[in-house]
Amino acid sequence: MALIVQKYGGTSVADAEAIKNVARRIIARRNKGDQMVVVVSAMGDTTDDLIKLAHQVSEKPGERELDALLSTGELVASTLVAMAIRSLGSEAISLSGAQAGIRTDANHSRARILEIDPSRMRRELEEGKIVIVAGFQGITDGLDITTLGRGGSDTTAVALAASLKAKACEKYTDVEGIYTADPRLVPEARQLRDISYEEMLEIAAYGSKVVHPRAVELAGEFDVPILVASSFAGNPGTLIHREVSMEVRNRVRSIAHDLDVAKIMVVGVPDRPGIAASIFEPLAKAGISVDTIVQNASINKITDLTFTVARSELDKAMKVVEPIAKSIGARECVSDAKLGKVSVIGTGMQNSPGYAARMFSTLSERGINIQLITTSEIRITCIIEESQVGNAVRALHQTFQLDAES
Amino acid sequence: MALIVQKYGGTSVADAEAIKNVARRIIARRNKGDQMVVVVSAMGDTTDDLIKLAHQVSEKPGERELDALLSTGELVASTLVAMAIRSLGSEAISLSGAQAGIRTDANHSRARILEIDPSRMRRELEEGKIVIVAGFQGITDGLDITTLGRGGSDTTAVALAASLKAKACEKYTDVEGIYTADPRLVPEARQLRDISYEEMLEIAAYGSKVVHPRAVELAGEFDVPILVASSFAGNPGTLIHREVSMEVRNRVRSIAHDLDVAKIMVVGVPDRPGIAASIFEPLAKAGISVDTIVQNASINKITDLTFTVARSELDKAMKVVEPIAKSIGARECVSDAKLGKVSVIGTGMQNSPGYAARMFSTLSERGINIQLITTSEIRITCIIEESQVGNAVRALHQTFQLDAES
Repeated sequence: MALIVQKYGGTSVADAEAIKNVARRIIARRNKGDQMVVVVSAMGDTTDDLIKLAHQVSEKPGERELDALLSTGELVASTLVAMAIRSLGSEAISLSGAQAGIRTDANHSRARILEIDPSRMRRELEEGKIVIVAGFQGITDGLDITTLGRGGSDTTAVALAASLKAKACEKYTDVEGIYTADPRLVPEARQLRDISYEEMLEIAAYGSKVVHPRAVELAGEFDVPILVASSFAGNPGTLIHREVSMEVRNRVRSIAHDLDVAKIMVVGVPDRPGIAASIFEPLAKAGISVDTIVQNASINKITDLTFTVARSELDKAMKVVEPIAKSIGARECVSDAKLGKVSVIGTGMQNSPGYAARMFSTLSERGINIQLITTSEIRITCIIEESQVGNAVRALHQTFQLDAES
Repeated sequence: MALIVQKYGGTSVADAEAIKNVARRIIARRNKGDQMVVVVSAMGDTTDDLIKLAHQVSEKPGERELDALLSTGELVASTLVAMAIRSLGSEAISLSGAQAGIRTDANHSRARILEIDPSRMRRELEEGKIVIVAGFQGITDGLDITTLGRGGSDTTAVALAASLKAKACEKYTDVEGIYTADPRLVPEARQLRDISYEEMLEIAAYGSKVVHPRAVELAGEFDVPILVASSFAGNPGTLIHREVSMEVRNRVRSIAHDLDVAKIMVVGVPDRPGIAASIFEPLAKAGISVDTIVQNASINKITDLTFTVARSELDKAMKVVEPIAKSIGARECVSDAKLGKVSVIGTGMQNSPGYAARMFSTLSERGINIQLITTSEIRITCIIEESQVGNAVRALHQTFQLDAES
């Protein structure tokens, strides 16, 4: 008898009907003979509604209170799923993050899991119960409720799977798996049967929101296989795991893209030590994530510094950067909000040359101008105009023959 | 510096505006120099909405899960009140029942408080914070969430006041205090400045829903004065406490009434030992509260047994009683659903004769037939036809001169 951790997102538990469906799925899986721990997110728009309510009573709700407030969304969903399972005749119990033994640091709204004490879960499992755990939350040593921030429920599921030494973590969501590219952009995109942690991490960080990178990273660290599948279809989904099938296969696995990109260029900066720090430290303090950074080779000790941020953070970033640019004697500070990112991803590329060249020439043949380039061992990313992202993804999907069975 | 426990009900925190008003009231009170612990109920209809949701996924939601679900209503309200206070510039922190140290037994949906560990509350108070506690809930030794059942938030407030040795417990609600009779029935009814625990207990049990009897009982036991007042008005309210002013005062304090009364008569019962038990034990097991019980003097070893139940439980009670009546050889079993109760209440009555006689003659002069009579040391109650309750209350209010300043 193995142990399976499942995770259902907010749309899977959006209303009573959806919850009853999820309950039936869980029971069907349980009846195959495995023990089950199930992590659920808050129902539908609950979290947004609670945030709205908080902002109606306070312009700046404190993070500790906001965490206590938001954690109720997952508590509600988890108790309802447990009730639905019981009403169908199976044994189930809901546990809050605290009851599931999820101990975190005290960084409210973005807490990290420090340790999981699985003894209560084990006890309930041994009594034959299906254990439903409220995702996204934990408890500090001081008994305060924390939330885990972005990707919190995915992270809860993987962390529980690791702590319980589960056979796999199954994530049910509104997509059917991981694709060679976004099927909305590329009609011939193909669903992948499996993918490695490293590839998924790049895909997650560079486009697809299917599994949060934080959860993928944790899964890789503890070697927890994640199955991504739809809660509404019979599709087998995509398995994220360590060993990708050894058969000869396409070295490029997926084309990822992201439309939410803005660029800031600090032009004509006197090139002296400490300049980069003087710009990026204040941005970090303002809580702005900087993605790609490019510094041109210095000519006559004058350089240009270019970087990208999420589009929603452009205004905030410009307010931080403009006065600094002035104070360090830069000529000007310009921004472009209408950019996108396209990435070619595959572990097979790392020891094989020529992928970057093929990517650049494909884009150039389509008349697509590359504004910035950034790479990792298993990824090549180009920043291009937003309006050209669709074309670029389709062209690259074709170039790397991703429509063919790998 | 004294410590005050306040309690706000669901209508006082029904929406963001109401919550901001409550926050302002709490701060104004705090600024008078007292330390503050505030217990809040769930917003408006939240609890009913959650129960509905539970019944949509399960015909019979388990009590443990239902408790975990319902407890979120008070968590939401308490965090929002804390946020609202902080946004107005005062320090506040919300605590769940568990964080407030409220340990209960494991009787889900009707848990009893076993013990309160006030150390966390004390620490937060010493740091100058206003402490907002989610009412209606506690935690078992096994770390499961419980709810306290009917009157739960009132009970939380009084229990916290007792445990913190607070100067008083102030209950804010949608009425302005305790009256000599229901002002909707008796326009000249007068608000009482104060009332004793015993009198309030009789009023609470025999009509008014202003403070739950369970909370009044606890308050009397630990000598916690309760101030009942409206959260929307400047009215000073009514103080429930041990020492009612020693000045000469009216010995009848209040006329209480209740319209939710049904009567069951088991007619022609052979009078032998064990007959009463054979009827009332099965009723208790079925969870039906029996109120007044009257057994007529036995004539030729045949007697009648009459008792009242809440109208909503009449059908259920008849289903229990009818087969028993048959089996013990009773002649028949009849019921009347359209009854009401009217009570004259006052500690001053206990050593003074004549009150019962004055009550009965007042009713008789109005042509009101008394069906059953029941008394305690400080209360005389008559069961009459429902349609005559208004008349009876007005007449008794006049007879005992409750419109005059006491």
